[in-house]
Amino acid sequence: MRARYKPWAAELIEAHPGIVIPEPEKLKGRWQEEFGNANPLHIEAGSGKGRFITGMAQANPDINYIGIELFDSVIITALQTVLETEGGIPNLRLLRVNAQEMESFFEKNEVDRMYLNFSDPWPKTRHAKRRLTHESFLSLYETVLPKNGEIHFKTDNRGLFEYSLTSISDYGMLLKDVSLDLHANEPEWNIMTEYEEKFMKKGQPIYRMEAQYNS
Amino acid sequence: MRARYKPWAAELIEAHPGIVIPEPEKLKGRWQEEFGNANPLHIEAGSGKGRFITGMAQANPDINYIGIELFDSVIITALQTVLETEGGIPNLRLLRVNAQEMESFFEKNEVDRMYLNFSDPWPKTRHAKRRLTHESFLSLYETVLPKNGEIHFKTDNRGLFEYSLTSISDYGMLLKDVSLDLHANEPEWNIMTEYEEKFMKKGQPIYRMEAQYNS
Repeated sequence: MRARYKPWAAELIEAHPGIVIPEPEKLKGRWQEEFGNANPLHIEAGSGKGRFITGMAQANPDINYIGIELFDSVIITALQTVLETEGGIPNLRLLRVNAQEMESFFEKNEVDRMYLNFSDPWPKTRHAKRRLTHESFLSLYETVLPKNGEIHFKTDNRGLFEYSLTSISDYGMLLKDVSLDLHANEPEWNIMTEYEEKFMKKGQPIYRMEAQYNS
Repeated sequence: MRARYKPWAAELIEAHPGIVIPEPEKLKGRWQEEFGNANPLHIEAGSGKGRFITGMAQANPDINYIGIELFDSVIITALQTVLETEGGIPNLRLLRVNAQEMESFFEKNEVDRMYLNFSDPWPKTRHAKRRLTHESFLSLYETVLPKNGEIHFKTDNRGLFEYSLTSISDYGMLLKDVSLDLHANEPEWNIMTEYEEKFMKKGQPIYRMEAQYNS
């Protein structure tokens, strides 16, 4: 997700190294130490403005969260949410890096769950490899997740969801739960992303799945 | 699917034993002989008024089709379609039996593909065992299909489709193709059922999947 160029964003990010971690590769294998507890770690690849990951962190204080987002101009909004929250959000960290490099930041088994929300649909067939549920990415996530680790994935994009169902099945993963209209029967634990609210208000269905690695 | 009671239906069915096979258990293992060729055999469990299976048989003369439907009052419409077709539909037979007993009518490997269209959603959790994509049915279909045999399934019912995706995944089957709005991009080979046309005209999405046994 891109937003307007914000020249002051980099400065604000640098001023808060306890929230937006400047050299996350140094914490590879040491995230429990960083959080100061042995709670599970859930990460979101492409956390955008951070509404989902900040909401999840506040709703679930016994889980540690990391939001990964490449662009200063959007991660800055997540940082501002933390700064505006009284007491901060102690169980949340942000990484301003490319999620494709997650192997550099996490050991195998160090991440307990992966969230993917409203990732770029890349609708052209020749761009299928860029979809975050392409087998190359499923293989990447497996390098940091435990045996039987889970991916929780939401999107408004029908084509991406159709593709993801077959890609995940073809990878040998198990579909644990599927919703083809999340807001027809919204679970109480659901935290909406910015996109989700926008598309829900337009009356478009939101698709969601929980998929589990088979080994 | 039930329809009005039609006292004349049983009589018309009995008058056409070459179309609605009276004792299909006698043809178990001998369907190629019955059709007089070695073409693939595709069957539909719950063929209702037969619009899908008669349409498929007419569109694909090199495939043999069998429609299975329990109720006289609806299978009669399929029979009438055959009778009204000039030259009949030589590659189609109808069975007025319960599809749950298909093991009595087909040998293992005798059926090449199974169609399920708009089957009863049985929305209550306590009725999940009656859904035609429940594991007990997936296990039944496997007794007549070959290794890597396929089920092609369409429905307008979101809950049934969500359930079916997880049930089929849990059974170890592979999702080959999924459409979450078949008519947004209708394939030229699609043959509509009666229900499908009705729901499509209401603007409701039709869900479709092709699923393959893994062994």
